[in-house]
Amino acid sequence: MSYYKHHIFFCLNQRDKGEACCAQHDAQAAFDRCKSRIKAAGLAGPGGVRVNKAGCLDRCAGGPVAVVYPEAVWYTFVDQQDIDEIVEEHLKEGRVVERLRLAPEVGR
Amino acid sequence: MSYYKHHIFFCLNQRDKGEACCAQHDAQAAFDRCKSRIKAAGLAGPGGVRVNKAGCLDRCAGGPVAVVYPEAVWYTFVDQQDIDEIVEEHLKEGRVVERLRLAPEVGR
Repeated sequence: MSYYKHHIFFCLNQRDKGEACCAQHDAQAAFDRCKSRIKAAGLAGPGGVRVNKAGCLDRCAGGPVAVVYPEAVWYTFVDQQDIDEIVEEHLKEGRVVERLRLAPEVGR
Repeated sequence: MSYYKHHIFFCLNQRDKGEACCAQHDAQAAFDRCKSRIKAAGLAGPGGVRVNKAGCLDRCAGGPVAVVYPEAVWYTFVDQQDIDEIVEEHLKEGRVVERLRLAPEVGR
């Protein structure tokens, strides 16, 4: 069994010189929103959900991105509503949010 | 199928005021070693291995720690030899290194 039921990693990578990066797209705000919602729901911790900072996940072309393990589901998102939907549907109920899935071919 | 066959996250968290953290235990050197070995082996990238920086994974009592997804295998390590064994056995061959597994009860 996985130590965390869902372990979500947000790319918070910040690049120099104007290169594309998730940090340009309010990734920090998305991370903060997700973390506070999970905490408020009492789901944080072992056997529950861990909302984690990560460095570059190397799928920058679809940024901002996050990945949920162990199920290996990748998301791209635009605003807080998207994050709330990932929290409510996926992290609470285990239902993948198909409309926010990152296309398989999206890479760096 | 998972975008990366093995996605390993190293906690590189740095705490203030002398609190225990993975950064105190040369986590950066372990990350660098792992990343360069995977690159040298030609295994980096989609369908292969991604060696990723992460924030606190919240299992600090066993630090330094890393986790490999999607298989959700957690490791603790001491030196470069341990990292090399994780690379050679797990990330190249898919064989879990039992002697380096983090005990299930280890938390923050």
